[in-house]
Amino acid sequence: MFRTHTCGQLKMTDVNNEVTLAGWVQTVRKFGSITFVDLRDRYGITQLLFNESLNATLDANPLGREYVLQVKGFVSERSNKNANIATGDIEIAVSSFTILNKSITPPFTIQDDTDGGDELRMKYRFLDLRRNAVKKNLELRYAVGRSTRNYLHENNFMDIETPFLIKSTPEGARDFVVPSRMNAGEFYALPQSPQTFKQLLMVSGYDRYYQIVKCFRDEDLRADRQPEFTQIDCEMCFVEQEDILQMFEGLVRRIFKDVKNIDYTETIERMTWMNAMWNFGNDKPDIRFDMKLCNLKFPLHTFSEQSDISDLINGVDFKVFDEAETVIAIAVQGCANYTRKQTDELTEWVKRPQIGMKGLVFIKCNEDGTYKSSVDKFYTEDKLKAIATAANATVGDLILIVAGAEERTRKAASDLRMYMGTTLGLRKANDFKLLWVMDFPLFEYAEEDNRWVARHHPFTSPKPSDIDTMINNNPKIENAAEYLKHPYANIKANAYDMVLNGNEIGGGSIRIFQKELQQKMFAALGMDDAEQQHKFGFLLGAFEYGAPPHGGLAFGFDRLCAILGGSESIRDFIAFPKNNSGRDVMIDAPSIIDDKQFEELQIKLDLKA
Amino acid sequence: MFRTHTCGQLKMTDVNNEVTLAGWVQTVRKFGSITFVDLRDRYGITQLLFNESLNATLDANPLGREYVLQVKGFVSERSNKNANIATGDIEIAVSSFTILNKSITPPFTIQDDTDGGDELRMKYRFLDLRRNAVKKNLELRYAVGRSTRNYLHENNFMDIETPFLIKSTPEGARDFVVPSRMNAGEFYALPQSPQTFKQLLMVSGYDRYYQIVKCFRDEDLRADRQPEFTQIDCEMCFVEQEDILQMFEGLVRRIFKDVKNIDYTETIERMTWMNAMWNFGNDKPDIRFDMKLCNLKFPLHTFSEQSDISDLINGVDFKVFDEAETVIAIAVQGCANYTRKQTDELTEWVKRPQIGMKGLVFIKCNEDGTYKSSVDKFYTEDKLKAIATAANATVGDLILIVAGAEERTRKAASDLRMYMGTTLGLRKANDFKLLWVMDFPLFEYAEEDNRWVARHHPFTSPKPSDIDTMINNNPKIENAAEYLKHPYANIKANAYDMVLNGNEIGGGSIRIFQKELQQKMFAALGMDDAEQQHKFGFLLGAFEYGAPPHGGLAFGFDRLCAILGGSESIRDFIAFPKNNSGRDVMIDAPSIIDDKQFEELQIKLDLKA
Repeated sequence: MFRTHTCGQLKMTDVNNEVTLAGWVQTVRKFGSITFVDLRDRYGITQLLFNESLNATLDANPLGREYVLQVKGFVSERSNKNANIATGDIEIAVSSFTILNKSITPPFTIQDDTDGGDELRMKYRFLDLRRNAVKKNLELRYAVGRSTRNYLHENNFMDIETPFLIKSTPEGARDFVVPSRMNAGEFYALPQSPQTFKQLLMVSGYDRYYQIVKCFRDEDLRADRQPEFTQIDCEMCFVEQEDILQMFEGLVRRIFKDVKNIDYTETIERMTWMNAMWNFGNDKPDIRFDMKLCNLKFPLHTFSEQSDISDLINGVDFKVFDEAETVIAIAVQGCANYTRKQTDELTEWVKRPQIGMKGLVFIKCNEDGTYKSSVDKFYTEDKLKAIATAANATVGDLILIVAGAEERTRKAASDLRMYMGTTLGLRKANDFKLLWVMDFPLFEYAEEDNRWVARHHPFTSPKPSDIDTMINNNPKIENAAEYLKHPYANIKANAYDMVLNGNEIGGGSIRIFQKELQQKMFAALGMDDAEQQHKFGFLLGAFEYGAPPHGGLAFGFDRLCAILGGSESIRDFIAFPKNNSGRDVMIDAPSIIDDKQFEELQIKLDLKA
Repeated sequence: MFRTHTCGQLKMTDVNNEVTLAGWVQTVRKFGSITFVDLRDRYGITQLLFNESLNATLDANPLGREYVLQVKGFVSERSNKNANIATGDIEIAVSSFTILNKSITPPFTIQDDTDGGDELRMKYRFLDLRRNAVKKNLELRYAVGRSTRNYLHENNFMDIETPFLIKSTPEGARDFVVPSRMNAGEFYALPQSPQTFKQLLMVSGYDRYYQIVKCFRDEDLRADRQPEFTQIDCEMCFVEQEDILQMFEGLVRRIFKDVKNIDYTETIERMTWMNAMWNFGNDKPDIRFDMKLCNLKFPLHTFSEQSDISDLINGVDFKVFDEAETVIAIAVQGCANYTRKQTDELTEWVKRPQIGMKGLVFIKCNEDGTYKSSVDKFYTEDKLKAIATAANATVGDLILIVAGAEERTRKAASDLRMYMGTTLGLRKANDFKLLWVMDFPLFEYAEEDNRWVARHHPFTSPKPSDIDTMINNNPKIENAAEYLKHPYANIKANAYDMVLNGNEIGGGSIRIFQKELQQKMFAALGMDDAEQQHKFGFLLGAFEYGAPPHGGLAFGFDRLCAILGGSESIRDFIAFPKNNSGRDVMIDAPSIIDDKQFEELQIKLDLKA
């Protein structure tokens, strides 16, 4: 062993003991004939004191940043104590030292606020990982994993490994594939998730399964997606939805306690998908703040249970609202005093291509009880007041209104709400609010392909009350645009997402476990019998031999860690992430391969010109 | 929840309680108007009693093997108790039941001794996994993993995930590769091990790393190899070999305690590679029994420290020995009374192609002090006695002697020793003997390529005393056959294997952490500077920025579990294994992929005619 103690360990009680430490040189400070060195390792930093007797040796063997150093010396009390670090009471009076390895000058500083840009940090990730900021993230990640394993173990879950070289059955996302040398012309696929395997384990009676496991999706990488990512993947049998919700509420509470020392004892709110869309404009609302949407106008067939209040805005010949499918207002508390510049900036913000609105209407609910709006020439003060009342606005509030086609407008309203939440400091990193979103539609319609697609995945069960519709009421859709009239459009899934601070951190469902229903589902997605057999014959087969009722859930491990770490970027919670082109710029992968490899795999390139 | 209790839970103290159970029908036994059903789940089996009041309902809803059943009833004391199962004191007097799912007749019985052959069991693995024998293996696997994680956690190791989509740098084994769609013409490789990444984590100062992680090798599958396998992968920094040996002795002792309740307190023997080859004929000897080899004749340059005793067999004009490079005897205790039939069978055994000997010489050390051999016409009784003495044989022993070319003969002697050990019952499944084999040669010579290859891998450090030879004494080899005269042939690696009952369960080394030495190593393997940079530039780069001394080890998780489970076959310790052609016969993978996938990946097949 190159050391007797770590750099985070020594205290006043160790004074006068002889110790050996090893670590990296963080800083070198020379004061006349004495030299102070901060020595760093994973556990902390310890101050070293080289007195004048070592001057000549130091001159002959100068130390530099990031040198690897082993020192022997005596622990002594510091004259100048540093309360900010665990070893701040002591220092080491060095008696001898060995340079174990040298370092050239790093391309950026190894500090919390580094001067390295993103590209440079990724290229030298092995140096970036030395920074305390990144190390803390990986430590948190390990703690989340450990807490998860302990909780699941105590609840009788078994970690069972599922295979990585499986079969390509592209449904939603693209598979990464792996050519097989021993079976030339055939390919394995890397799993997008262990979904069918965990279901087979339930059929096999393993009762409670989990895995913290890598999954792979060959998608065009939006910001903050990775081609390989990690899931906490779980499945249980002989359970109903409520059992699963409670089990995994327990898991998340445990993680909060173990990792953040937060007692998350409050009830976890549950919301239907429909209510989430209605009140927040998206299916993963951030409920740390209220600011609900006021639906002044909306497609009646989509929100059929809601009452139409469009009279509030109709009849004044304001074309923007009259021609819009959807008009949504949000009341922003205490912002009636926004200046022209500020409202102009908000207008520019919603007109950005990512938001895509043509403009923004605002109404100020002034302190004196009057209303001032950007549409005063269309709406009387009484009308403005009525809109304000509908939007739950009170004196001092600013009402923002967007209008346009349903989908885009709802998303814009949602984005605007989040933006205002951020602007007003309502989205605090250390405030955590969990939420279940439930009762999703089972299907979405892909108009371009004129077929249903599974919103969650093809193994999700419909609500028990919808099973009959699913099996017996599937008329042919003659006109793709009228898919909303089809009985399948109203089928609800036995599915649930867990949302934390506006991010989906997990999702799951009760699964189909009846062969006939599973076949109906595949058929609804446009798979004929032959395709069903080719792709999922093993699962349909398994369902013939006594499949139990089962269901489960998977958490996005990278994202869960990032949010617990107060960040919305997953990349700094992954030791060796890839960039947005799917490249690891440190090792320079992917890369070309040898002719011999092509020959053995019996494939060749077929590059587009 | 579909149940109040599991099928392994109910006891006398539950009698008279109303319970609900769910599980699989193991057996149905009808006695007149009452029916007994054994209901099975992961946790056990509970007997159900359906009395005559349920007869009509049962007739209308007959139960079959593997049906999924939910029953409600009262716990009652059994008249006929079964001490073999945990719930054997009670049964459930069923008041109502629901068939949750039916099952067609399984293709084999779900019992410890199933009637299913290997092929059938693999095709219906989801049924095979229901068998108690397989479930116990996976439970043991989970227990080994859990014990490993606990021990490593307590010793400050951090689980850090390394990437699966990396760069192809084929050294020894072939990589599986993954075409990149976003970087057309380029490929990722799946890791053969996280070797370079864990070393980078040491350079990054993570100090103690571990992972239980899938690795991939595209090799022709010998029996009991899998294209994807699992490693317990560990690395430490600021350590010497002794630190690592002690840390992982501790891990294995802990696993023995946690999983097998065995206090493995004895000292773990250490043996040099040279002594293992000399005494046991292989580098992973099973030391549960002695039966050491007696090297009557051997290549002097290979075992240069040993004394030549070939005079014992020379000078009698016995061509078989005279012409052999190597002659090895083993003394088998108490087998002097083997019949002619038995010695003939042993002769046939060594002549099998897998062993490849031309014949077998034997000497019987008779009870009356005489010697009887198959070479009596060449050797006098005095000579036979001298050979017997050298072989450590005593009265009643049978000496077996093989002769031929060194490598094949030594392997044959080793195999023969193991075979006799098995035959004589000396290799007991529940007897565990650990061993470290150390001081391996750093290099092997590939005569066909006329270059050195790394015996362990190219990151293994030579013994400190050999570093100077490595850097400064590398003359060109003019004649490949004379590679043994090259200074590199004698360099020993700072490497160690852990052996359990004749199986290598883990191996590791102290790593090279100096850029220059690493470059020398790559050069010795025939890589020029450009190739070094292309393949391992990131590692050489990392070594410039303060790389600490480090080393580690990886355990073969599948094999470790199999041996602890008393088996030498890993397949039944993997939930979803592949067959010897690398196929998953259950899901039928690998398989063909769509034209669209080829098009997007910009590759095509190039099948040999």
